[in-house]
Amino acid sequence: MSTAVLERSLVERLVREALKGQTNGYAGNGKAGPPNKLVVNVSARHCHVTQEDLERLFGKGRKLTPFKALYQEGFFAAEEAVTLIGPRQRMITNLRILGPCRDHSQVELAFTDAIQLGLDIPVRKSGDHRDSPGAYLMGPAGMIRLERGVIRHERHVHMGPADAAHFGVKDGDRLNLRIKSDCSAVLEDLLCRVAPASKLEVHLDTDEGNAVNVAKATKVELFK
Amino acid sequence: MSTAVLERSLVERLVREALKGQTNGYAGNGKAGPPNKLVVNVSARHCHVTQEDLERLFGKGRKLTPFKALYQEGFFAAEEAVTLIGPRQRMITNLRILGPCRDHSQVELAFTDAIQLGLDIPVRKSGDHRDSPGAYLMGPAGMIRLERGVIRHERHVHMGPADAAHFGVKDGDRLNLRIKSDCSAVLEDLLCRVAPASKLEVHLDTDEGNAVNVAKATKVELFK
Repeated sequence: MSTAVLERSLVERLVREALKGQTNGYAGNGKAGPPNKLVVNVSARHCHVTQEDLERLFGKGRKLTPFKALYQEGFFAAEEAVTLIGPRQRMITNLRILGPCRDHSQVELAFTDAIQLGLDIPVRKSGDHRDSPGAYLMGPAGMIRLERGVIRHERHVHMGPADAAHFGVKDGDRLNLRIKSDCSAVLEDLLCRVAPASKLEVHLDTDEGNAVNVAKATKVELFK
Repeated sequence: MSTAVLERSLVERLVREALKGQTNGYAGNGKAGPPNKLVVNVSARHCHVTQEDLERLFGKGRKLTPFKALYQEGFFAAEEAVTLIGPRQRMITNLRILGPCRDHSQVELAFTDAIQLGLDIPVRKSGDHRDSPGAYLMGPAGMIRLERGVIRHERHVHMGPADAAHFGVKDGDRLNLRIKSDCSAVLEDLLCRVAPASKLEVHLDTDEGNAVNVAKATKVELFK
């Protein structure tokens, strides 16, 4: 029966491998497309940590070790992973840390993950921890208690200034995402995050990616 | 670490309790609403079995014991639950059987469940097992091997003749579902299943219900 524990460590990797990459490369909307190709990626559950929390979890002087580059320049999945412990000793093992380190520690789960863990989490943008629960993070060198910061990261789209101009949006505006698949849907109100160096990329969580079967999407399109 | 196994048994119940009921009772579309109130329910993973398979799993002469009535008249979650075993010994415990018994055994999972189990499942309507994988089901009296029949049940809406007339659809047609929440979306192409005794009810799986946060929906609406 203990194989169920081992499964947990496979979920992130499987979801990431199954959904990432396959969803890259669909043109936005043909001839009048955005300056850059629209990429839709699914973020499996993960966490971000401060350098201070990293050292509490992995030991003094520890630095994050890049394991796999993410689509946005300079970001990576780290080799380091932790165990997330929620109420009543329920836990999720092998929760990947994404780098580089940030000025706040934060855990990003899908609702399916949170329900399994027994947590009621809010939908928030990164860094907004209002009314969010905490949890324990356990690493090989120690355990830390997050007072809060376990959230479902709201669906969003990264883009640079040229794409923002194309879509007629500014940072903080909203766009809709149409996905054509055998589970077609329009996901509404994606938060636009505009930054000079950003590449055009939608981030969904695993619930969203699985709900719309984005791995087998035949078309993805952003619109106002 | 073995608490992770126990968690599995809580997931179905938590999801069902969290999502069911709370989503009942939203009127379809105000003054020109359908004859009957639109109910959106989330089906956690479950299975259906034939009487013959039930007896192999639970013993000769066994009958399903109703545990909780479902919204559609005559259907119920049974007290009986099985362990679902996929490739490489990964498993899901406490998979609820829904009654009454059917003329085919079938397992209905969300993609998140299937990925965890290591299965690549197709999106199908009930009874359509084309290209679907099999699995083992284990009960207290025995284990059976399903050659196929593990599917993601496609999103659908049950309705009676009066509702079908209101929406202008017949059995097998498609409708879209708009959900307003903090994760708003339009889920497209819900299969209409029209039967004389059916009540107006949408069935989503847990990925879909969680993706759109249907538990906190402020409005749900069916449209062509």
